[in-house]
Amino acid sequence: MLRLLHVPLCPFCRKVRIALREKGLTAELVEVQPWTHPDDLLRLNPASEAPVLIDGTTVVCDSQAITDYLEEAYPEVGLLGKTQAQRNETRRLVAWFDTKMNREVTELLWREKLVKRWAKKGFPRSEVLREGAQNIRFHLTYIDYLYQSRKWLAGDEMTLADIAAAAHLSVLDYMGDVPWDVAGGARDWYAKMKSRPSMRPILLDRLTGLKPPAHYDDPDF
Amino acid sequence: MLRLLHVPLCPFCRKVRIALREKGLTAELVEVQPWTHPDDLLRLNPASEAPVLIDGTTVVCDSQAITDYLEEAYPEVGLLGKTQAQRNETRRLVAWFDTKMNREVTELLWREKLVKRWAKKGFPRSEVLREGAQNIRFHLTYIDYLYQSRKWLAGDEMTLADIAAAAHLSVLDYMGDVPWDVAGGARDWYAKMKSRPSMRPILLDRLTGLKPPAHYDDPDF
Repeated sequence: MLRLLHVPLCPFCRKVRIALREKGLTAELVEVQPWTHPDDLLRLNPASEAPVLIDGTTVVCDSQAITDYLEEAYPEVGLLGKTQAQRNETRRLVAWFDTKMNREVTELLWREKLVKRWAKKGFPRSEVLREGAQNIRFHLTYIDYLYQSRKWLAGDEMTLADIAAAAHLSVLDYMGDVPWDVAGGARDWYAKMKSRPSMRPILLDRLTGLKPPAHYDDPDF
Repeated sequence: MLRLLHVPLCPFCRKVRIALREKGLTAELVEVQPWTHPDDLLRLNPASEAPVLIDGTTVVCDSQAITDYLEEAYPEVGLLGKTQAQRNETRRLVAWFDTKMNREVTELLWREKLVKRWAKKGFPRSEVLREGAQNIRFHLTYIDYLYQSRKWLAGDEMTLADIAAAAHLSVLDYMGDVPWDVAGGARDWYAKMKSRPSMRPILLDRLTGLKPPAHYDDPDF
């Protein structure tokens, strides 16, 4: 039985949860609060970060290490693509969303609005929120551009690139921070992602005292 | 023939350069200035970031995607480890250095001191430099801790974890920002890394107008 230590509204934890489902795997979910540096998390991951995957006696820390592990240990359904060129493209885009978009958008909005709230440390800074709100438009336009010539973001198959992008956008969308009207193609692609069974459980997460917009879990938004 | 578009004092480019050498591969190095968004870089990598590896007709963007590509395309010398547990540990530590230490140390010092200088955009902020200088002590102590019970950072073999750590530290050391005296084990481990032939070329890079400390390229420092 797999166990995943996670934070429900963390994009990196969501990426792993969607990837598990797409591979036909289920994991027991254990919610953690890394910002309190709890002992049981620190023992498993000295970085005090989620996600952490526990597979029998194997402990895997970091979302990238976990998805790499899942590809090697459970190769039946591959999420990177069959050819070398496809895998290069999937990985380029995973890095795009997990590093570039994370730095330019998610970190700014998520850390200011949610992590500060959870950790009870300070208040969102308006200039940081403005920067994130500005930057997300560029990333939606890029998703739109990719989707114009492809069935999925990295090519004609759904890959980890779609999963990474959807994980970030689902967190941003929960906070009402995605201006979907700027990029119709991005909206169509995300509607297609939302209709996948792997996305359903994460769209049902609710945070006490913070409701998502009405369209949040509606695939036909 | 491999070609690598790189920035000489970028930790992620250095990680790839060391990895190439460790795998017995050589690449023609082409210096780029991503902060000017040059057309020839943008055509290859829409993120306008280095490193970019060109292998015949194959283009691979992002340092993680490149090292994954090298493992798959040139598997003779593996840099992740032979067992699944070893690969998990290597990847955990690569993420530690490339994400956590990068966010807490390298980004703060490197972006403030070097990228701002190159891009001719603003001056280093002293509070950010202070934060980076404080945080690096924790990371040196962690390297020290790992090296107490292991021959290399992820176990008894040199892996990509050592390469990632050495890439970051070599850039920080160039700027004189590594307080080696706080962690003797970290210093011993880095001396061992510096004596590897794969590290020599990167230790010979010099930036106009900014000299590294005298110990910088000395393996017996």
